[in-house]
Parts: sequence; C-alpha cells; structure tokens
Amino acid sequence: MAGKACNVLITGANRGLGLEMVKQLAEMSCPGRKIFAGCRDPSAPKSQSLQELAKKHPGVIHVIRLDTTDPCSVKESAKQVSLVLGKNGLNLLVNNAGVLFHSNMQTTGAKEMQDSFNTNVVGTMMVTKEFLPYLRVAAKSSGKSGMSCSKAAVVNISTILGSMTTVSDMYSFFPGISYRISKAGLNMLTVCNAVEFKEDGILFALLHPGWVRTDMGGEGGEIEAPESVIGMLQVMDSLTEKQNGAFLGYNGKPVSW
Amino acid sequence: MAGKACNVLITGANRGLGLEMVKQLAEMSCPGRKIFAGCRDPSAPKSQSLQELAKKHPGVIHVIRLDTTDPCSVKESAKQVSLVLGKNGLNLLVNNAGVLFHSNMQTTGAKEMQDSFNTNVVGTMMVTKEFLPYLRVAAKSSGKSGMSCSKAAVVNISTILGSMTTVSDMYSFFPGISYRISKAGLNMLTVCNAVEFKEDGILFALLHPGWVRTDMGGEGGEIEAPESVIGMLQVMDSLTEKQNGAFLGYNGKPVSW
Repeated sequence: MAGKACNVLITGANRGLGLEMVKQLAEMSCPGRKIFAGCRDPSAPKSQSLQELAKKHPGVIHVIRLDTTDPCSVKESAKQVSLVLGKNGLNLLVNNAGVLFHSNMQTTGAKEMQDSFNTNVVGTMMVTKEFLPYLRVAAKSSGKSGMSCSKAAVVNISTILGSMTTVSDMYSFFPGISYRISKAGLNMLTVCNAVEFKEDGILFALLHPGWVRTDMGGEGGEIEAPESVIGMLQVMDSLTEKQNGAFLGYNGKPVSW
Repeated sequence: MAGKACNVLITGANRGLGLEMVKQLAEMSCPGRKIFAGCRDPSAPKSQSLQELAKKHPGVIHVIRLDTTDPCSVKESAKQVSLVLGKNGLNLLVNNAGVLFHSNMQTTGAKEMQDSFNTNVVGTMMVTKEFLPYLRVAAKSSGKSGMSCSKAAVVNISTILGSMTTVSDMYSFFPGISYRISKAGLNMLTVCNAVEFKEDGILFALLHPGWVRTDMGGEGGEIEAPESVIGMLQVMDSLTEKQNGAFLGYNGKPVSW
C-alpha cells in the first residue's frame, strides 16, 4: 500500500500535487520510511515550502536535485538515493513532474510540442529506467506474492485530458494540445511498461488527479490538492496485479483511453 | 472521395504505402488532378521508383522535396505546391511519412524517442499547419455541404500499434515502444484537429493500413501494399462528417484507442 510503501520517490515534489503527496506520506506513521522528494532546483525560492517540510521530518524526507529532462541529473539523483537506501530497494516511484501549455493547434509550435514531450514522456521514461534496478531490489526482497505499491510500483500521473474520448466535449473549453498529446504518449509508455516488467513483479499504473486548484490546474479547478492526494493514495493502496497497466481517477474509477 | 479528390499531397511518397498510393491515384481517371508526392530527397536512389512513376504521368504527379522534420523544407514545399495549384485548393493531405524503431523500454533511449516523435507527430503537425490555408481554400470553394475527402480532408496514417488495447497481446511479439508512443500521440493530435477545424469544413481521420509487407512492415507482413492502399482509398471514399476524428482500419472497421 502507498501508505505503507516504505521507500518512495516523487518527482516534481516542490509544489502542487507532488508537495502535498510528500506531506501526507510524511505525516503517516511508517517506521523506517524514506521519502525522496525530487525537484529541479532545491535551493530556489519555489522549493522553500518543500525544504521547510523536510526540516519538520528529518531523516524521513530527503530533498534530491532531479531535473527529469537532464540525463546527468537523473543519473546523479539515483546515486544520491542509492546512498540513503543502502541495500534496500525503492518500493514506489511516482512520476509526477510535468509541464502544461494551454495552446491549440494554431497557436502551438514545434518547440512547445518537444518541450511537453521531453518532460512528460521522455523524462518519465528516463527516470523509470534509471530507478528500475532499485525497484527490482524491492520486488525481489519483499517476499510478497502478487503486485502492490508496498512491494514495487511505478505510478505515472496522467490526466483525463490524455483520454481521446474526452476531446470532443472538452477541447474547445481547454485545448492544451501539446499536453494532451504528451499525456496520450505517457499512457502508452505506461501500458507498455506494465507488460515489459510484469515478470519483475513491478506494477505500473496511471492516475488522473482530478482538476486540482494548483499552479498548473489554475483557480478554476474543482478540488484542492489535499483531496486529490488523499484519493490518489487510497487508490494506490488498493492496486493489485489486476490493475497493472490501468488508468484510474483519484476516485478509483477507470478512465477510458 | 479520395478517388475523386482533385488535388492530393502525400508525404513519404517515395516508397512503401506512399508510393503505392501515388500510383493508384495516378492510374484513376480524374481530369485535372494534381498529385503532390513529397519525399525527403527526390534525387536519391531510393526515390528512383517515384521519379519513374512521375515520368509516366506528366502534369499529374509532381515530386516535391519535403522533409517533414525540417521547418524550411516544409515551408518551401508549400510554396512549390502553391505555384502548381494557382487559385485552386488542396483537397486531401495524406500524412504518411513516418519512422519505426523496434526497441523496447530497456533498449531505447531519449534520442530514439525524440526522433520518433519529431517525425511521426511534430512533422505531421507542421505539415498540416503549413497546408491548412490550401485546405481551407478547397473547403470554401467546393460548394459542397458536409465533409469528405473530395472536399477537404487530412488523413493521418496511424497503426493499430498505437492502440492501448492491443499492447497486452502484441507487445512481447512486437514492442516498438517509441513508435507506439508516437502513434498514440498522433492519434491525439488528429482527434484534437478534428474538433479545432470542424468549422472550417476540413475532415480529419486516422487510418491503420494493416500489417503490410513494406520496408517498414518487414517480410512477416500479412498483406501487400496494393491491397492495403486499395482498402484505404475505399475507406477515404466513404468518409463523411460522421467519421470526423475516427480511427479506422484499411478494411473500414473502427480501431479502438
């Protein structure tokens, strides 16, 4: 269970949903837990809330420099995490880092498309590849059968905007074409990973966090970050091998492709 | 109807499905038709078959240099097409150019992911954006109601490998992770375009050509290029506003997302 996953890495953890997830996990009683909070620039003003949170939970929250679009940073972050983990594995990787542009086809260009794809898909892929050895250690050493977030899992934060079936109703209101395209790609990445790493006992799933009032979601969001994260952690708790490769909302309901 | 679409541009037209599509369209009786056959390097040995075909149909087939990943080439190609079109519009754009890598997660890297995305998604987007004014001219001047490939349409060549629902059965046999991710992205691009340009009267659709014995599909393919193209042209003929944003096989059957 996510609440019981011993060692967790969350990317994009300095604000919004990532920060809230670190907070809720740190406040749960879980002996020996290590939470690795990845963010691009730990010393920047926008990482201050995370740093303050880490001070409240010494030895539990480890702030790690992790720019998911920079191969050197990804490698370096794994070394740092490995030093803290020692011989222990990583139970849960939450790929939460992402960017959102609001453009439609007519106002977007190649660079925006590439930036969205690099962060939301390639970054997720490179982080997952780098941390696979630590997830494998967790899966092998767990002694548990089946799949779960407390054993070894990768949860990728997607969105209902990456669902083809929602475009006709929602596009005029919220285009975000490069975001939608990247999230459809992220969905495919996750479904492929679920097949490729099934034998390793590593679970892969996609979560739609709801429309949340964060910097990314904007003021028009329908829920606050705590509600979304409470829901997502509950859903993570409930995941088994039956949900390997699934796309679920923060309320646990399946989202269509 | 595709068979009756007067002016058609096909990308990646020097071999495989693109070349076969140029051939079949050129052999159909259609007075005044202009077929623009785009390829990266018209003077290269691998474009020889296309050049020979063009010689057999003077004034009908126009070979155009078009590297979909090069913004200058995309702009230049539109100028060339425009010179031939004069005041006429472009009725049908078939985005067929694409690349395929066979890797899985463990054997692929950031560069392969970016190359796939740039050709299969960004290239398609940039070509579509560049030729939109000519498609709009065709839609406005057609005098026809509704939507069709003989009026104004963009057909993007996708694949069943871009369908999330086929991964669990087919991935171990045919991974192609960067290809699948890019095609899922292409599907999303097309669905978004179908909404954004609905009011312009431009139809957007996705076709799965089947598993074809071409350079890309390999020797293990189930059908030959002529059969696939006969099917796809028939499907294009049948498209109306009801299929705007649809994903169909070369046999006309809907493909799931």
